[in-house]
Amino acid sequence: MNMETIVKNDTQLLLAQYNKVRRHSEQICSPLETEDYVVQPIVDVSPPKWHLGHTTWFFETFILIPHFSGYKVFNSQYNYVFNSYYETVGARVVRTDRGNLSRPSVADIYTYRAYVDEQMEAYLQEAVLTDEIYSIFELGLNHEQQHQELLLTDIKYILGHNPLFPPYNENYSGNEKPDVDSGFISMPEGMYEIGFKGTGFSFDNESARHSKYLEAFEISSSLVTNSEYLKFMQQGGYENFIYWHSEGWDWVKEHQAKAPLYWHFIDGSWKYYTLKGLQEIDPDEAVCHINFYEASAFAAWKGMRLPLEEEWEAASSFFNWGNRWEWTGSAYLPYPRYKKEAGAIGEYNGKFMVNQMVLRGASIATPEGHSRSSYRNFFHPRHQWQFSGIRLVK
Amino acid sequence: MNMETIVKNDTQLLLAQYNKVRRHSEQICSPLETEDYVVQPIVDVSPPKWHLGHTTWFFETFILIPHFSGYKVFNSQYNYVFNSYYETVGARVVRTDRGNLSRPSVADIYTYRAYVDEQMEAYLQEAVLTDEIYSIFELGLNHEQQHQELLLTDIKYILGHNPLFPPYNENYSGNEKPDVDSGFISMPEGMYEIGFKGTGFSFDNESARHSKYLEAFEISSSLVTNSEYLKFMQQGGYENFIYWHSEGWDWVKEHQAKAPLYWHFIDGSWKYYTLKGLQEIDPDEAVCHINFYEASAFAAWKGMRLPLEEEWEAASSFFNWGNRWEWTGSAYLPYPRYKKEAGAIGEYNGKFMVNQMVLRGASIATPEGHSRSSYRNFFHPRHQWQFSGIRLVK
Amino acid sequence: MNMETIVKNDTQLLLAQYNKVRRHSEQICSPLETEDYVVQPIVDVSPPKWHLGHTTWFFETFILIPHFSGYKVFNSQYNYVFNSYYETVGARVVRTDRGNLSRPSVADIYTYRAYVDEQMEAYLQEAVLTDEIYSIFELGLNHEQQHQELLLTDIKYILGHNPLFPPYNENYSGNEKPDVDSGFISMPEGMYEIGFKGTGFSFDNESARHSKYLEAFEISSSLVTNSEYLKFMQQGGYENFIYWHSEGWDWVKEHQAKAPLYWHFIDGSWKYYTLKGLQEIDPDEAVCHINFYEASAFAAWKGMRLPLEEEWEAASSFFNWGNRWEWTGSAYLPYPRYKKEAGAIGEYNGKFMVNQMVLRGASIATPEGHSRSSYRNFFHPRHQWQFSGIRLVK
Amino acid sequence: MNMETIVKNDTQLLLAQYNKVRRHSEQICSPLETEDYVVQPIVDVSPPKWHLGHTTWFFETFILIPHFSGYKVFNSQYNYVFNSYYETVGARVVRTDRGNLSRPSVADIYTYRAYVDEQMEAYLQEAVLTDEIYSIFELGLNHEQQHQELLLTDIKYILGHNPLFPPYNENYSGNEKPDVDSGFISMPEGMYEIGFKGTGFSFDNESARHSKYLEAFEISSSLVTNSEYLKFMQQGGYENFIYWHSEGWDWVKEHQAKAPLYWHFIDGSWKYYTLKGLQEIDPDEAVCHINFYEASAFAAWKGMRLPLEEEWEAASSFFNWGNRWEWTGSAYLPYPRYKKEAGAIGEYNGKFMVNQMVLRGASIATPEGHSRSSYRNFFHPRHQWQFSGIRLVK
Repeated sequence: MNMETIVKNDTQLLLAQYNKVRRHSEQICSPLETEDYVVQPIVDVSPPKWHLGHTTWFFETFILIPHFSGYKVFNSQYNYVFNSYYETVGARVVRTDRGNLSRPSVADIYTYRAYVDEQMEAYLQEAVLTDEIYSIFELGLNHEQQHQELLLTDIKYILGHNPLFPPYNENYSGNEKPDVDSGFISMPEGMYEIGFKGTGFSFDNESARHSKYLEAFEISSSLVTNSEYLKFMQQGGYENFIYWHSEGWDWVKEHQAKAPLYWHFIDGSWKYYTLKGLQEIDPDEAVCHINFYEASAFAAWKGMRLPLEEEWEAASSFFNWGNRWEWTGSAYLPYPRYKKEAGAIGEYNGKFMVNQMVLRGASIATPEGHSRSSYRNFFHPRHQWQFSGIRLVK
Repeated sequence: MNMETIVKNDTQLLLAQYNKVRRHSEQICSPLETEDYVVQPIVDVSPPKWHLGHTTWFFETFILIPHFSGYKVFNSQYNYVFNSYYETVGARVVRTDRGNLSRPSVADIYTYRAYVDEQMEAYLQEAVLTDEIYSIFELGLNHEQQHQELLLTDIKYILGHNPLFPPYNENYSGNEKPDVDSGFISMPEGMYEIGFKGTGFSFDNESARHSKYLEAFEISSSLVTNSEYLKFMQQGGYENFIYWHSEGWDWVKEHQAKAPLYWHFIDGSWKYYTLKGLQEIDPDEAVCHINFYEASAFAAWKGMRLPLEEEWEAASSFFNWGNRWEWTGSAYLPYPRYKKEAGAIGEYNGKFMVNQMVLRGASIATPEGHSRSSYRNFFHPRHQWQFSGIRLVK
Repeated sequence: MNMETIVKNDTQLLLAQYNKVRRHSEQICSPLETEDYVVQPIVDVSPPKWHLGHTTWFFETFILIPHFSGYKVFNSQYNYVFNSYYETVGARVVRTDRGNLSRPSVADIYTYRAYVDEQMEAYLQEAVLTDEIYSIFELGLNHEQQHQELLLTDIKYILGHNPLFPPYNENYSGNEKPDVDSGFISMPEGMYEIGFKGTGFSFDNESARHSKYLEAFEISSSLVTNSEYLKFMQQGGYENFIYWHSEGWDWVKEHQAKAPLYWHFIDGSWKYYTLKGLQEIDPDEAVCHINFYEASAFAAWKGMRLPLEEEWEAASSFFNWGNRWEWTGSAYLPYPRYKKEAGAIGEYNGKFMVNQMVLRGASIATPEGHSRSSYRNFFHPRHQWQFSGIRLVK
Repeated sequence: MNMETIVKNDTQLLLAQYNKVRRHSEQICSPLETEDYVVQPIVDVSPPKWHLGHTTWFFETFILIPHFSGYKVFNSQYNYVFNSYYETVGARVVRTDRGNLSRPSVADIYTYRAYVDEQMEAYLQEAVLTDEIYSIFELGLNHEQQHQELLLTDIKYILGHNPLFPPYNENYSGNEKPDVDSGFISMPEGMYEIGFKGTGFSFDNESARHSKYLEAFEISSSLVTNSEYLKFMQQGGYENFIYWHSEGWDWVKEHQAKAPLYWHFIDGSWKYYTLKGLQEIDPDEAVCHINFYEASAFAAWKGMRLPLEEEWEAASSFFNWGNRWEWTGSAYLPYPRYKKEAGAIGEYNGKFMVNQMVLRGASIATPEGHSRSSYRNFFHPRHQWQFSGIRLVK
């Protein structure tokens, strides 16, 4: 009898898991003003209240409505507002519209959460979860954890692009793991097993576990720091196209990019917006909020390269990770024998497997318990607003 | 000694005027949720909290800072946030950004209002207003009244474009003036005096008063109703380009326009969003929320035309007006001998005198005391979101 | 028996008129390379071969097809290619597509012209023109003359935006009329008769002739010269928003405008592209290729204004005109009693009567015999590519 | 002494190679009208005359100017016009502008070609090519061959988007290789050597040759045909998002895609534009002009997938290929140990290694001698205008 079977029959454990995740979303939002929940400065950022509603909608739509007999939908129009991209479940609101919706209000959404939580508790008390339902339940929790990270990155964007630079939390302390520089780690050539292995939860994109032949490589034990990145900037990194992809160079010129996101040159020195407010740059901190084009250009300037995702996974037990999502040189594509699941759940990952790059690791914004060495995060190469950094390979 | 001189030396009267206007803005917002203050669904609509801040910034910037000795600016960064388009007074926030600003919060803005009001009261108690200061004071009040109308039109847009169609006020009763249809009024040809005449306040664009020769014309005593407009729709008004300007026809095709703004064909009948929520169309009400292209196309379909602004003004004492802003066939251009004033105040009207059409009258959203027969409102021909209607001439 | 009746029954005169106009279009194109006929650098410019085809299509569509019994259409697909904006006559090619069409070839279009000319000659030999047909015939000739001016402005744009700056004709001599500066002409206040009067051809927008009351004004006898405009530039005209309309200032910033179209600052001096190639600026020549925003800003900088179109018409007999289309301060709107004609011909002018400004006079590109003091040209305020200039009023 | 050394010292062979390639470009253009050389209907398509000039500029810039002493540049402004994207060699014309340039004329460009050819011949007669120069020479020939394929695809686009559907060549017979359907080929799991091997020319992106572990797979011996693709269309392939990537589905909706590029449903049956003009669909021909999204969706509908580029290369000796560029499921990324070369030549391939997908094989438009089983073609997933098709893996 494996771990999963034990969990799925233990009501108290299910409730504890559920409540832990659900409360954490609300805790992330606790420093916000009502107004902060509402805006959407760019299309990639969602209003915090939308994240709170959408993660709730997931449990209502995929568990309560189909499986909890007698469940009464909270508000039938919420599907229209809180569906994100599940084409299978009816017309979605175009993403750019999210920031136009003043209603449901924040209070309405907290009421919605409370209602769904109450119903989920009632359901978990009485139900015997089939494998299928348990795996949706687990997916719902992991889904909400993903949105917890997005909540923090989106809140940072909203406050960090306000001319008043309001701090999120003046006492915020990112929980960074030690990132000691002990040079490069040599990995031998050979066949490596890649992908998820184990009995707990994983996303479908981490499967099937498969063999990958890798040439020998050396990977840095530590992330690139702000002071190293500053040197790249000072030596003309943003002015010389030879370091950049063609698309990356277009991005530099279009945005007149000169520094990572959130950096501002004020009164003769570089500062950055942090969750504690505007601060002097810490030279020893891992550089953050750079996109794939920047990560790549930095590596080219150093005469090195980004790791393949399989290299990263193979070497990950030899270095500390978890401070920054680390851009890899791998495009986000299906693993051998990858299969999309049927129905709406099948839309989770597979349909994004084009024109995105894989990031590995986790960041200070990743909720506890939501990271694995086989985890595949993915974003478009232009995106800077995640807590993303650089690890080099030579 | 004229009216103006009396007023500007009567502190109690000044305070009463000031407070009446200032309180009215807040009263308009009283039914709102905090979230409703924040969003900006289209570039033409401003978030309600911005209107509240901007009108306050006007008094701070043009009266308190230059004229109230010892005045301490509330927050020096607010100029950056609440300036609208006064290039003379420093860098403005690009209009499209307003909906991205969660801060200052609604509470902050009410605090700002209270602070400026307190300071204005102190100032008015002790100051002797020069002609110049009095005219800025008066302009500030009229400016805020203009924003009161925009507050209501923008709130309607925000709530009326929310998929939940929340009412603004379920008991709202627009204060319509009787609009009895007594056919067409015949006006003889001749010289008419046009423009502001009197001693009270007027905008610079209503001057200089001047002579205008008009041919004989007949003008309708009443506005076009919903039932008449519905007939235009049913007889293919939106499908036949011959009624439309070339630009108007492009607008129809681009927006697949079929009806006035806020109209929805639901379950077999036309309904519209009103400040009381979604309602059946009232056939006898004056049609509302149509743009110049639509007004013009309707008139062409009827074999008539829109009045010139001078015809409207000349005939205005013979009909009731004030329910709808009435599109005229006149472009918004300077009157003979019009002069822009110096400084930021000079930016108020003159710089908009191109590519806009004049509307005359007032609407149910116009604050009491803010209408005159010489008043020249103006919008781009494509704009529908004002309470705009149609009066015909033949 | 009036002039028109005489003409329309005189076959030889009709043929002479027809051939003179038709040959002139071809003569304008004679210096072109085949490639120059094809491109469309901006949406406002049409490829020269399109002008040649479109003007031919006009005679085929409105005269030969409906009135010349037995006429065989040259190519039934040409209606699709050469209709411009006559919605009445079937689906038109979207204007932006014109520059994508390599076929019909230039040779094909000359063959088309020859075929239609031959047929028109046969038709004119045998037909007795009704009033209606004669007026379409006359309109066709005037229509082609309008396109002759556009041909020249579009050719200038095509060659003047090529990095090789090829001359159109190295010996081109614009046929400028003397433009002697004899100060300002004083015009008394009073009633003026405005609009077309006479028996020859005029466009529908020049009617009805009507009375207009004008205040006294003084109008310059000469156009603003390059040296005067250069002074405006040197004194910061393009850097100070107070001279500009709000839309105009947005245009300046968006295009980083610093000088009229075709001006280039090269090796320390201002040069401009002319039909003879790149030249030093002639300081005494009337400034050319400025848009309404620029004309307006220049006038504001001088403390003067642009004339109303009626002022221009009333005073036009007191000065020489014809070198530049002169921007007026009048929006393009219908005259009193203006009526659109029925059918496609009715689409000629009326549907453009919104968001455009009137220009009066004529330019060095206007064909002989195609100018009148009542002529109303019109363009969007942003357009620079016509031979447009400035006359001031104070 | 290897092949390469022999060639590079054999003047006659070099001249023969050079002239063969150069003449072929001109032969491709021989059926064109002058006008066809000029237009650029979309940004991805270049005007044929630009291809002719650009390939010539390559030899002038990288061989004659640096290496042929006394060489006189044909026209110093041509670098501005014909540089494509070599940032190292000065300001380039923005790609979208190419279709606006009527000059240099087609005749000028043929003169330019003749001049450069004459000079190249003189140079090759007298020079002893270093390895470096020889490799640039060889690159120049391969570069021109790539543009020969683009010439044909761009010409097809230009003529195929003209409402008159002019044939390129009524007797054109694409030179298709036999593509016999003998089911699926089974390939065993194992280590495969991937990348260029040999002594002739290859692009830098085909190196370094490296080991790749592949699982067992079965690959179709033949390409998907029009009749199979039609079945996908008829069974709702373009209406059901489950087959599509999220980006692909957005593309379908934005373009209202229903069929491959060049297909038209006319008078009750599907036709397509071919180089011979408009034709009935041939059901047995390999489907062509589909993009990656379509190829992928078709494979999903079949319950199969696209091959990895390494699978394709490993199996390529077991099937005929060369009729269509075959979309793979591999993103275009550097091979292990890939290094960009220094200088402008280094910009050739590496900087495009993001957000593009690999195509393998060759097409009927690929010049003879310009294909290899290790050749890596690449395009954005949205591109349809190449001669691209589908091979399946299960």
